[in-house]
Amino acid sequence: MKYTHTTAPTQFVEANGIRFAYRRFGQDSGTPLVLMPHFRAGMDHWDPAVTDGLAVSRPVVLFDNAGVAGSGGETPETIEAMANHAADFLNGLNLGRVDVLGFSIGGYIAQALALRHPEIVRQLVLVGTGPRGGEATHDPKVGELGASTDPSTGETGLEAFLYLFFRPSETSQAAGKAFWARRHMRKDDVDPPSSPQTMKAQRAAINAWREVRGERYSELKNIEQPTLVVNGNHDIMIPTINAYVLSQEIRRAQLILYPDSGHASLFQYPELFVAHCRMFLDDPPLFA
Amino acid sequence: MKYTHTTAPTQFVEANGIRFAYRRFGQDSGTPLVLMPHFRAGMDHWDPAVTDGLAVSRPVVLFDNAGVAGSGGETPETIEAMANHAADFLNGLNLGRVDVLGFSIGGYIAQALALRHPEIVRQLVLVGTGPRGGEATHDPKVGELGASTDPSTGETGLEAFLYLFFRPSETSQAAGKAFWARRHMRKDDVDPPSSPQTMKAQRAAINAWREVRGERYSELKNIEQPTLVVNGNHDIMIPTINAYVLSQEIRRAQLILYPDSGHASLFQYPELFVAHCRMFLDDPPLFA
Repeated sequence: MKYTHTTAPTQFVEANGIRFAYRRFGQDSGTPLVLMPHFRAGMDHWDPAVTDGLAVSRPVVLFDNAGVAGSGGETPETIEAMANHAADFLNGLNLGRVDVLGFSIGGYIAQALALRHPEIVRQLVLVGTGPRGGEATHDPKVGELGASTDPSTGETGLEAFLYLFFRPSETSQAAGKAFWARRHMRKDDVDPPSSPQTMKAQRAAINAWREVRGERYSELKNIEQPTLVVNGNHDIMIPTINAYVLSQEIRRAQLILYPDSGHASLFQYPELFVAHCRMFLDDPPLFA
Repeated sequence: MKYTHTTAPTQFVEANGIRFAYRRFGQDSGTPLVLMPHFRAGMDHWDPAVTDGLAVSRPVVLFDNAGVAGSGGETPETIEAMANHAADFLNGLNLGRVDVLGFSIGGYIAQALALRHPEIVRQLVLVGTGPRGGEATHDPKVGELGASTDPSTGETGLEAFLYLFFRPSETSQAAGKAFWARRHMRKDDVDPPSSPQTMKAQRAAINAWREVRGERYSELKNIEQPTLVVNGNHDIMIPTINAYVLSQEIRRAQLILYPDSGHASLFQYPELFVAHCRMFLDDPPLFA
């Protein structure tokens, strides 16, 4: 029996002194696709419609980075250190070259991983994210709502999540609620919520990432991997123009923006997103 | 035997006093896809890899608008008048509701058609184009090269075309030459080149379209059709930021930008473009 998003058991691997929680499902062979999630998120914050859709044609690996949710260790305060932890995890699992899908802060880490450990990364999918020193949000509610915590779960509550990740339109809000139901389908063997330490350290790392370092956007020229950049056309957390910038500066980047959607466009259009990802990732790629 | 791009005979239909040249091929049933080409171009300026690829799953209709190439009449000096001519042609053929793919000035006409005759247009594909009053090119060579004419053909020559429509990179230039060979595969029953009158009138229409009218970009809010916006990530003729603007302002717009490519990204990545178009146009659409 093949495992799926909801049935894959949580496993652990020790690497460089950290005990990493991970799950693997989908095809046994092919280039694995490794997913890196958003602020405060662990393995249970993905959309099964996305992960199982991608797993039809490749191995999919979810994991919690150091200190996050079910993994041991402490969450570090820089994106670069998070990328190094991710490399430790991937080397610990002996996965070889992988494709990496990074969402939000996970997209920052994916970029840093491709820059610091290029030999590990075959292709990149960057969703709802932006470059170092990108354009900041102008929405005054983002900071507060992003840190808000539902006391019954220890996580972001539904109302804050719908505001931050979806558009105010009826269609987008309905898609957000449908996603929320899908992501809670897994009932057993779930991650614990991330700790306040993780939130604080990730916040520090995000703030440091917002600072321009050297010539703005120049490090993007060093990303050689074919890259698919995806966002909603009105992201209030990491403004959509940042996705455009990524597509201008990364040499082999393709950009896709979805209508009537925000930060979580991949959860609003899971079928479309999976179809676009598979076109991009499948061998032989239509562009490379 | 089914016709293809190179074998479909040129036909004519009289509508509102104009004798329009057109060709039809591909499937007999389904929503027809009608293509509107770039500055000075007629039916022979498309890529058979694109048109035949799209025609696998729908009827494809090419035509010359009033005054252009093989059609009768004069080319008018406004985009709006060109859109009205296009509506005359479509009504003359009794095509019912169609999908429209507009490239460059053809994308301006497609927008005007959707705004002035919304009942005719089901979905829009806008390639290498921009909104009324968009951002102008900063490349000083575009005007001169766009008007240059190879005396042996009466059309834009290869060197100017490669500069204007492709990137300077080796890969993009090679793709441009491969396209040039494909587009000249049709040897018989070809269009005559467009006249100087067409070039002059189209130039006037383009200049008028560049002027902001009323609140900038506001008319885009009135385009209700699901719209796929496509460009290369570095278009020097209609700068790529204009495609981004279209995707911000048209309510149901999806944006796709291709790497290492310019104005003619659809001819650089014909298979990828056809796959993306078919995902967007096929019934049922994954978003609508």
